[in-house]
Amino acid sequence: MCEAHAYLRLDDEDELFFENVDRVEPQDDCLVLENIFGQRKIIKARIKELALVDHKIILEKVEQEKKINN
Amino acid sequence: MCEAHAYLRLDDEDELFFENVDRVEPQDDCLVLENIFGQRKIIKARIKELALVDHKIILEKVEQEKKINN
Repeated sequence: MCEAHAYLRLDDEDELFFENVDRVEPQDDCLVLENIFGQRKIIKARIKELALVDHKIILEKVEQEKKINN
Repeated sequence: MCEAHAYLRLDDEDELFFENVDRVEPQDDCLVLENIFGQRKIIKARIKELALVDHKIILEKVEQEKKINN
C-alpha cells in the first residue's frame, strides 16, 4: 500500500495531522483528505510539498482573513 | 517504492504527463515535479486530486491569462 501521512508544517516542526492518507482533493481554500479506511478530514490548508517515497504530504495552513465587524 | 504517475486531466481523458514522481512542490501557479531519478518537470498546473493507493496524481492546467497588446 502506498498511502502517505499528512503533516502540518509549523514554524519549527512538522506536526502529524492524518495517517494513512489515500486521497487528497483540494476544494477552494480547503483540502479534503481521505485515509485508506474511508475516514475523512477537512483542513483549511494547501499542499506545501509531496514526498511520496518518504510517504509524506506536507500541508501549510491557509491564513484566515480577519473578519471586520462593522 | 511508492512513487506515483502524474496525469493531466483533459476534457474526456487523463493524459500521462510524468512517470515515477517522487516529489511535487507547488510554486505560484506552477508545479515542480521530480521523479525518482531526479529528473524534473515544471508545469503550469495545480493538483486536482491525489489517489495514492492507485499511484495517481491528477493535474489540471491553470488557465493562462490572455495578454492584451495595447
